[in-house]
Amino acid sequence: MDCVFCRIVAGTLPSTKVYEDGSTLAIMDINPLTPGHLLVLPKAHVENLFEADEELAATVIRVVVRIAKAVGRSLKPDGLNLLQANGKAAFQSVPHLHFHLIPRRSGDGKGFDWPLVPGKGEDIRRLGDLVRSVLA
Amino acid sequence: MDCVFCRIVAGTLPSTKVYEDGSTLAIMDINPLTPGHLLVLPKAHVENLFEADEELAATVIRVVVRIAKAVGRSLKPDGLNLLQANGKAAFQSVPHLHFHLIPRRSGDGKGFDWPLVPGKGEDIRRLGDLVRSVLA
Repeated sequence: MDCVFCRIVAGTLPSTKVYEDGSTLAIMDINPLTPGHLLVLPKAHVENLFEADEELAATVIRVVVRIAKAVGRSLKPDGLNLLQANGKAAFQSVPHLHFHLIPRRSGDGKGFDWPLVPGKGEDIRRLGDLVRSVLA
Repeated sequence: MDCVFCRIVAGTLPSTKVYEDGSTLAIMDINPLTPGHLLVLPKAHVENLFEADEELAATVIRVVVRIAKAVGRSLKPDGLNLLQANGKAAFQSVPHLHFHLIPRRSGDGKGFDWPLVPGKGEDIRRLGDLVRSVLA
């Protein structure tokens, strides 16, 4: 089994488990961006959102909500980012669907704050039309 | 009504809608981090994941999956990041739950790639214990 997360699910690779049920697992990230950085993932191997069915994602996000609230009560962060990556261009490092829960502290200076720059309305509408055109 | 997204839902503020059903809305972000940047949000006003119930989140994520796949088919990005912010410390700008879908291109140089730095096992286990302790 090549997939690191499948090996963690199978118990052949160690992890710090925070929550587990029949279909979902929450573990601590071993490369925490901030203290308390967690991952929530389905036990079934699905590469990313492009491959996931809606019900699998719904099952996982219910656990994400439960864990986010538990992080709020226990670690009392000032905020929390949920981040999920699909594909290497999006910096997905393990090709097994997972959601990052990243507790934030005011002024922690951690990534992904970006300046809000208005886009061109014409471009925005054209791209919106494109996406809409493939929705059944 | 003070909430920008509630006004968009009510139709008193314009938006570029990509998808809409009884409970969920997908619109183009007017400050796109990358071309095709979309938002998916519940019509009901819920501030963030800390306030959301699990079923509401499940309803929204089903639409996120559907839209992500549509973005994949229509815009053919190299990847996609899903990002969701809770609280000002996490750079939540509009206090109405929303998920960012950010199409990525290889080498686009856009935010939130971070170096993977291993954490101290002791700290990771202690924080995991804390979160686990409040899970029923």
